[in-house]
Amino acid sequence: MSLLEQIKISKDIKQLSREELKALAGEIRERIIDVVSKNGGHLASSLGVVELTLAIHYVFDLPKDTLIWDVGHQSYAHKLITGRNDIFDSLRQYKGISGFSKIKESAYDGFTVGHSSTSISAGLGVCYAKYLNKDTSDVISVIGDGSLTAGLAYEGFTQTGDLKRNLIVILNDNDMSISPNVGTLSSFLSRTFSAKYLQNLRNQFGIFLKSLPKIGDNIYNIAKRSEESFKAFITPGMLFEAFNFDYFGPIDGHNLEHLIDILKNIKNPKDPVLLHVTTVKGKGYEPAEKNPVYFHGVGSFAVDTGKSNHISNGIPTYTQVFGSQMIKLAKTNEKIVAVTAAMPEGTGLIEFSKLYPDRFFDVGIAEQHAVTFSAGLSSKGLKPVVAIYSTFLQRAFDQILHDVCIDAHPVVFAIDRGGIVGEDGPTHNGLFDYSYLRCMPNMTIMAPKDENELARMLVTAVNYNGPVAIRYPRGIGTGVKIEENPKPLEIGKAQVINEGDDVLIIAIGKSVCEALKANKLLKKQGIHATIINARFVKPLDTNLIIEYALKIKKIITVEDHVLDGGFGSAVLEMLTDKGVTGFSIKRIGIKNRFVEHGPQDILRRDYGIDSAAIVNAGLELHGNKIK
Amino acid sequence: MSLLEQIKISKDIKQLSREELKALAGEIRERIIDVVSKNGGHLASSLGVVELTLAIHYVFDLPKDTLIWDVGHQSYAHKLITGRNDIFDSLRQYKGISGFSKIKESAYDGFTVGHSSTSISAGLGVCYAKYLNKDTSDVISVIGDGSLTAGLAYEGFTQTGDLKRNLIVILNDNDMSISPNVGTLSSFLSRTFSAKYLQNLRNQFGIFLKSLPKIGDNIYNIAKRSEESFKAFITPGMLFEAFNFDYFGPIDGHNLEHLIDILKNIKNPKDPVLLHVTTVKGKGYEPAEKNPVYFHGVGSFAVDTGKSNHISNGIPTYTQVFGSQMIKLAKTNEKIVAVTAAMPEGTGLIEFSKLYPDRFFDVGIAEQHAVTFSAGLSSKGLKPVVAIYSTFLQRAFDQILHDVCIDAHPVVFAIDRGGIVGEDGPTHNGLFDYSYLRCMPNMTIMAPKDENELARMLVTAVNYNGPVAIRYPRGIGTGVKIEENPKPLEIGKAQVINEGDDVLIIAIGKSVCEALKANKLLKKQGIHATIINARFVKPLDTNLIIEYALKIKKIITVEDHVLDGGFGSAVLEMLTDKGVTGFSIKRIGIKNRFVEHGPQDILRRDYGIDSAAIVNAGLELHGNKIK
Repeated sequence: MSLLEQIKISKDIKQLSREELKALAGEIRERIIDVVSKNGGHLASSLGVVELTLAIHYVFDLPKDTLIWDVGHQSYAHKLITGRNDIFDSLRQYKGISGFSKIKESAYDGFTVGHSSTSISAGLGVCYAKYLNKDTSDVISVIGDGSLTAGLAYEGFTQTGDLKRNLIVILNDNDMSISPNVGTLSSFLSRTFSAKYLQNLRNQFGIFLKSLPKIGDNIYNIAKRSEESFKAFITPGMLFEAFNFDYFGPIDGHNLEHLIDILKNIKNPKDPVLLHVTTVKGKGYEPAEKNPVYFHGVGSFAVDTGKSNHISNGIPTYTQVFGSQMIKLAKTNEKIVAVTAAMPEGTGLIEFSKLYPDRFFDVGIAEQHAVTFSAGLSSKGLKPVVAIYSTFLQRAFDQILHDVCIDAHPVVFAIDRGGIVGEDGPTHNGLFDYSYLRCMPNMTIMAPKDENELARMLVTAVNYNGPVAIRYPRGIGTGVKIEENPKPLEIGKAQVINEGDDVLIIAIGKSVCEALKANKLLKKQGIHATIINARFVKPLDTNLIIEYALKIKKIITVEDHVLDGGFGSAVLEMLTDKGVTGFSIKRIGIKNRFVEHGPQDILRRDYGIDSAAIVNAGLELHGNKIK
Repeated sequence: MSLLEQIKISKDIKQLSREELKALAGEIRERIIDVVSKNGGHLASSLGVVELTLAIHYVFDLPKDTLIWDVGHQSYAHKLITGRNDIFDSLRQYKGISGFSKIKESAYDGFTVGHSSTSISAGLGVCYAKYLNKDTSDVISVIGDGSLTAGLAYEGFTQTGDLKRNLIVILNDNDMSISPNVGTLSSFLSRTFSAKYLQNLRNQFGIFLKSLPKIGDNIYNIAKRSEESFKAFITPGMLFEAFNFDYFGPIDGHNLEHLIDILKNIKNPKDPVLLHVTTVKGKGYEPAEKNPVYFHGVGSFAVDTGKSNHISNGIPTYTQVFGSQMIKLAKTNEKIVAVTAAMPEGTGLIEFSKLYPDRFFDVGIAEQHAVTFSAGLSSKGLKPVVAIYSTFLQRAFDQILHDVCIDAHPVVFAIDRGGIVGEDGPTHNGLFDYSYLRCMPNMTIMAPKDENELARMLVTAVNYNGPVAIRYPRGIGTGVKIEENPKPLEIGKAQVINEGDDVLIIAIGKSVCEALKANKLLKKQGIHATIINARFVKPLDTNLIIEYALKIKKIITVEDHVLDGGFGSAVLEMLTDKGVTGFSIKRIGIKNRFVEHGPQDILRRDYGIDSAAIVNAGLELHGNKIK
């Protein structure tokens, strides 16, 4: 029996010798690599914190002490030693365990996470609740340096320093978030201060030295020359100590002995503590150490080579099409600039960033800033295209509404990962964007039925003089040919794809494919459908939809989105506002609940938004309910 | 002719001598005090930046150089010298000039603002656009120290330091945001570092000194003893310089000479510059200097005494009722804690904060953190009540959805200033909350028809085991008696207020009053209405609404909210989902646009959500269209 198999609950590892702990670390790495190579997942970040995870579990009394992983994608080792080794093969699989920390999955998971930079705020809340409950146990938040780029983390830090409760923050510094880090914070952590900063500080230091009695210019000059020791005097800790944290580190996050010793020392602190730990992303698996960006979130791969098992069928993803069209458009329109929030790879903008470094901005995990910054750019005639996943754009709701929409600044939102995303689960699905964007005055919202339409929508958007969102799904397109020069669309015009008198199916985005599949099945049952590809959620093609609604009167709307306030809701509002009556309507979409993880097609089936659901609705409207 | 009357555009002040500038400052203060004493407005912050405003306009070439005021409520002096003196009497009045900066109002207003902490991000965007456009003019963002508590400001700072563009940030440090500042940043600005921080720094300093040749322990000890000069060595600038800003200051923000000199020096910088200016909120008007919190945003008052002209009719505001009920509930339920984001006065929690200092949290302008922190508190059994204005809660959209709703943490959202707020205008109206909250799974949403119902809803909410929002309007209640022990409501149950067979009016929140007024008018026309006070936007009282909808079939929904995805949309969705057909429905609410500033009742009339609009809808449904 391996060591890992003997660990049933966290405290079992307290029985191990330090040598055994090291052996366990090896077993854990093997297990993680093995499962992720099959299931895909967040490999590099999980490999980076194996020793840190063991040290925390060794020193603290979990789950009495509360451990909160920021983002939670680095929690695989934690899952393995908290009773989930037996089911770890189901990682990110349908009905299997989640790829993130989740309160409902385990009492050892201190907070449900997925989005970044929540761990300090949540940890402080837990910490303060314990204080009021007279519970003296510890709270440990583990946050990556990438997550510190978000304003939320800063807000959490500020109040933690202010309340002075005994929160332990462990800064897992791998000099990376998903991509290499940006922003001035990372230079603070790595001590690569600007020359000017050092010079100014040294000047002040000189004035200080000279102010002391008995210290003359001579000694000041000696001090001035000691470049290296002066630099060492300025530590990453200064920043955190200024915020009332006791700072420890930086220490090597792969040295178990040191980790355990220092954690024992900082246990049960009186004041907020920050322990700075440096780790290597992908540690212990060479391909991941060499290419941590690729192995951040990865599909299945061959363990021996690290090569992806994915065999491309030649059909590009929506992301790739977006990326290549951006390059094409930027060639002839020099006003186009691209903005991403720590996702140059994920949003398909790597190539763009190389070709147009001056017109590309990775702002870090700072969606709020990305949007307000873009409003500023567009206020002076540029055409910013802000590429952010649907779920992360939620962070910028107020900035879209307040900074972009009030003045109708022509900012383009390229919303990737709209709809059900699959294996990442409830924290990552993009199921709310139609609702939260639709209520904003001046906003135009489109969603393409295929990758060529995405190309056409992008042309449309960059030519449009107002805020506009294009929402497209995760994964490959439908395989259609992409026009050499994609033609712009007319704003607010839908497309009739199929004509039939029995039922009217109005679909948007990826759901148009499901509607087309359903059409074939319905035809077999003798039911002939008109299919409208709505293209626009806002403004709707009022005339066209009314024309058909008056004729057909049996209406189905389909969307990869929650029903509450979504696309079908918009159609319904419009029809009744225009006084159209006497129709029956079935809205297909997600019934107000969170969608768990699993393969997209299975989830679409389970949550009732696939072609079968459309067929069913069509039959019901025709009074042929299937049993 | 006064000096002020001679200033038609910004550059006119360049002709003035420094003595005349000082005289102009006096005239501006008088004018601001005079108008605000009549119209109400943001007095203290505007008085604090008169000299700073003059100095900026004197030194820079506006509007070629771009000036962005953070929040914008301090821009009155700026308005007066940029062609708006003639119309300044209309400040915050219906169809008058706005109380905030607004691109559409003047070319001198660099960015449209209202919410805090956007100026650095927007300024950086403008700055970078100018760089790409080969425009060498300057960009100046003026931000208060309070606004720096928001994560957005931090995100903006980080990228500004990273891009190293020539943005000029002027930190207007008055040691206040709206309330006295919180957070560790303010200690940084005021140099009140913690003893521990100083001690650690001194230790490192000692190690450094000892590492130098020829400096022995003796001199180290001398240095160690110089407490004061050591403290002076640590400047507020360190923080900003570490973020790649050139730091200047702190300088007295009421000394025009110094301001002009230093602004001339930092004009056209190569790198980002931060100028730290200290000002006094309310400067030049004694009552405001003495009570800057009261005079932050103020109604009309007597200039000689500073006393409010408001004569209370004895009816409390919703805010007051919320505050007093919170105290009452907290007495018997020790799990209740209150969280506000820099708005202890505005949300009515001052008394609570005094009675329960341990259970009260002002997190600063940090709505995101407020919500995630509350999720943490509630995960350990506390019952946080998060009181944030509707418009500001927009900042926490993702935190409500991701950190509260996924795990259904029982956090109570007390959403003040829901609906049309009036004089503050489009940046401050709370017209989107039903839509953005309704799409979130696990969320319950209520809105009271009067202040007693607010009390009942608060009891209901704190007893409910899940996320719940209570949305209530700005201003006084209806004057009803508040129950001694407000009875909880049944979740999802509506109330029939009036019975009539001709038309069914389903109203929510403040709109119930309008419905009752409309009822009287309709009755005169022989139309008898059933009025349902919906109480819940989510879940709706499905059974009750269907029962009446089937009977009456002529339905009007009324809400103080945009129509897109709002309350009426929810009713419509529900009815059609349940297969109810054959009804006519008119949804009354704001037609997707921003609502300008003015008195609430006039705006309700103009935007068609008052009793007249309901009467009109009722007559239309009855085929008696009024001309």
